Amino acid sequence: MITSRSSAAARACARSPLLRPVQHQRRSLATVSSTLFPGEPSAPHLVTSAIPGPKSKELSEGIGTFQENRAHGFVVDYAKSQGNWIADADGNVLLDMFAQIASIAIGYNNPDLIALAKTDEFITATMNRAALGSFPPTNWQELVETGLGTVKPKGLSQVMTAMCGSCANEIAFKAAFMAYRARERGDKADFTADEMQSCMKNQSPGSPDLSILSFTSAFHGRLFGSLSATRSKAIHKLDIPSFNWPVVAWPDVKYPFSQNARENAEAEKASLAAVEEAIVSSTKAGSSYGPVAALIVEPIQSEGGDNHASPAFFQGLRDVTKKHGVFLIVDEVQTGVGATGSFWAHERWNLTTPPDFVTFSKKMQAAGFYHNVETRPSLPYRNYNTWMGDPTRTLQARQIIRTIQDHGLVQKTDEVGNYVYKALYDMIENGAGRGKVEKLRGENAGTFLAFDGKTPEVRDKLIMEMRKQGIHMGGCGEKTVRLRPMLVFEHKHADLFLEKLEKAFGQL
Amino acid sequence: MITSRSSAAARACARSPLLRPVQHQRRSLATVSSTLFPGEPSAPHLVTSAIPGPKSKELSEGIGTFQENRAHGFVVDYAKSQGNWIADADGNVLLDMFAQIASIAIGYNNPDLIALAKTDEFITATMNRAALGSFPPTNWQELVETGLGTVKPKGLSQVMTAMCGSCANEIAFKAAFMAYRARERGDKADFTADEMQSCMKNQSPGSPDLSILSFTSAFHGRLFGSLSATRSKAIHKLDIPSFNWPVVAWPDVKYPFSQNARENAEAEKASLAAVEEAIVSSTKAGSSYGPVAALIVEPIQSEGGDNHASPAFFQGLRDVTKKHGVFLIVDEVQTGVGATGSFWAHERWNLTTPPDFVTFSKKMQAAGFYHNVETRPSLPYRNYNTWMGDPTRTLQARQIIRTIQDHGLVQKTDEVGNYVYKALYDMIENGAGRGKVEKLRGENAGTFLAFDGKTPEVRDKLIMEMRKQGIHMGGCGEKTVRLRPMLVFEHKHADLFLEKLEKAFGQL
Repeated sequence: MITSRSSAAARACARSPLLRPVQHQRRSLATVSSTLFPGEPSAPHLVTSAIPGPKSKELSEGIGTFQENRAHGFVVDYAKSQGNWIADADGNVLLDMFAQIASIAIGYNNPDLIALAKTDEFITATMNRAALGSFPPTNWQELVETGLGTVKPKGLSQVMTAMCGSCANEIAFKAAFMAYRARERGDKADFTADEMQSCMKNQSPGSPDLSILSFTSAFHGRLFGSLSATRSKAIHKLDIPSFNWPVVAWPDVKYPFSQNARENAEAEKASLAAVEEAIVSSTKAGSSYGPVAALIVEPIQSEGGDNHASPAFFQGLRDVTKKHGVFLIVDEVQTGVGATGSFWAHERWNLTTPPDFVTFSKKMQAAGFYHNVETRPSLPYRNYNTWMGDPTRTLQARQIIRTIQDHGLVQKTDEVGNYVYKALYDMIENGAGRGKVEKLRGENAGTFLAFDGKTPEVRDKLIMEMRKQGIHMGGCGEKTVRLRPMLVFEHKHADLFLEKLEKAFGQL
Repeated sequence: MITSRSSAAARACARSPLLRPVQHQRRSLATVSSTLFPGEPSAPHLVTSAIPGPKSKELSEGIGTFQENRAHGFVVDYAKSQGNWIADADGNVLLDMFAQIASIAIGYNNPDLIALAKTDEFITATMNRAALGSFPPTNWQELVETGLGTVKPKGLSQVMTAMCGSCANEIAFKAAFMAYRARERGDKADFTADEMQSCMKNQSPGSPDLSILSFTSAFHGRLFGSLSATRSKAIHKLDIPSFNWPVVAWPDVKYPFSQNARENAEAEKASLAAVEEAIVSSTKAGSSYGPVAALIVEPIQSEGGDNHASPAFFQGLRDVTKKHGVFLIVDEVQTGVGATGSFWAHERWNLTTPPDFVTFSKKMQAAGFYHNVETRPSLPYRNYNTWMGDPTRTLQARQIIRTIQDHGLVQKTDEVGNYVYKALYDMIENGAGRGKVEKLRGENAGTFLAFDGKTPEVRDKLIMEMRKQGIHMGGCGEKTVRLRPMLVFEHKHADLFLEKLEKAFGQL
């Protein structure tokens, strides 16, 4: 049984000499969470026999009088939550490895953010919300350039802010459709009278029958455009009208990924061929869907089950989209902001040319997308709305980025992720998890780790068992456990997680 | 020429004895803005010969290096803006009657909001953003019930929060589609295997071909579902794929509204008949669009040109939708929160049964919709997303509502609106505006006032002339000036506006 970091590390090291440099780095960075959160607990504090406890249940029932409450996990005392630790209404304190569905980056009550909240700049921006597209604040350029601008993906110079992940993806879709039609129309051509009139009736040519191509088990949001590209679960889509947009099967890869490299390359090749076929056939007479203007893809499919593919696959997507004049939208809503061990997951693909759009939200707190000058609309007011994002969340994003940089949290997450991956690998292949869970994912993907229960029931039971042990985790797909800790999740938290996981496996 | 409140009031009174009670009320409430904003200017302060001035232009060009800047009006110094007054980057200070596209309710740097920003409750909620649908904070019920809950439209018990107006409308659409299909399916029926499978391919029956019916010149947002219901301008819709949803002509009414009551009633009758025809034909074989599940309507069409209709028209819409089992969505994104002289514009219709959904955003700062238990989805996770709204903006909404109530700002807006309407009526019928502008709208609609330039050029010139006079206004539709002052816009501001408007007319 793993009882301490040193024993877990020793075991992992015995298997892989590659871990040693990481061990060295670890010591020099080991105090980040204790510096930021001196009061962080060292162990779970459990006061009720089950979670949700009675107070959580009572509060949830109260909320249920005026809105949906059946998806409540438990009710949270955010004031008492600290760093990696979430406190519930009953006084239970759990290690949070779900982090508000992967959207808390640098810990609860991070002192840098609390300090930000008290600045005049923050208060002014929050309480005097600008219509950013028409009346931006005097500090907008400086704010963006010192925040979101410092993490622009390589090759992309523009950023448009939005409200949430769904909204970011949809506004990127709009930009892609406009740019696609602009290219068809030619640089100088105005809209025709027919276009101007037909769009008011939702008819082509003004409202063109163009498509977004996405993958099976993809999740890109839940508004009408983004939901049409989402293919995660029926419950997300039932009864909602959809655009007749095409879908291609995600590569049918096997895990652990690197041990199935040859078969996985074949599976990716098949998927790439299907992508090209879907694009090519979309412009042919008789196609059941309109021409594909853009392909949207997650670096790691998250809600849909933590499905991975190789850098070669994504380079293939870039090649095939480039070849056919289709825009490539990389949806980094869940993968972005460090969790995969690089700031953007797609950095590790080393693409020969950048994606056309990279969307973000969640851990960034601000939402939006990066793109290039070529995909700016021809006229103002085309991709426009009242708020055009949120200055409050843009300020918050800047501080999150700064804190990440100040403490080297991306590198740290990379190291901790490698450490956890190796320990999990051992535990699943040869240890307590064997025969209970399988298909470990996330080698070289930071703490963006996942594995499957042998059945959905095993997965659900494991999550509940871990909660009893004081570890809060989330699921995704049909039977996947996804680890989505914050960027302040360190080796000491990892060891606690591994210790409790081993115990929980014993209870299954 | 109108040079003071008393002369303007005297003139208005001479025309209408109805104004006198308003005059009386006015005195007792006259100090709200001076109480809240003791430093509020009493006159515009203009330091550059044109707005945007050189500093605004320079900052706007800087922003233009990384995002669209062609819709910029001017760059704003929000820290120096006060109450009804907006300060720009060059030091110009203007009376703001556009209010961030109708989204600032209670004045810039309102002390109640600044105080809120400094509370622990606000800081905790903002810097530890909850996934509200799964991990709500302990104070969520209390927060909603003492804020958004206190202004629930009559007959609606439920509230779902969202991110912005487009998002609020789309999530209401989703709720309407789910409830429509649930009724067709019957209470106990599960989803069929065919539904579960077909929705994953964006095909019916799982992704049903259902419609939202909207009106010509309507504006309901700019994401893919909401944009399909939007019919404001081609520039909002061009190149974006749309759902093939139906549209009915807004009643072709004449203004001033009450002076054309008989013709307007006929026009409304024709529109109601067209609505019924669109609904009935949607379920017939051969319909070019799917069955209408919901009708969405603004109490006053705002972006589309400030188009009005009578309470009888809206009662007619409620009757015809009720008759045919179509949900009625009232989009109060721009009309809501007091500007029309009642908290919700639709209150004045005195409907026999409430709308099914009332959506809000803008002045509320929080977004979402009110509805009833009957339109809750059958299962959790169906109308769900990561954030499910924003606790920060929900706290802000509560304070905005409290400040409105504490200072009687809805009643005040009603009174000031009546006062301005009457003065504008005189100015347009018999005064400086005659022959230059026409079609005054907003009798008994608070400060939600509008009139048309004789031509689009006259409208544009008037807005620029007013800016030179230190009054910031906005347009809408093809040639409309819309007044969208805040709820702290009082008689003294109205008099200044009327004085400058008279001057500006002289320059046209």
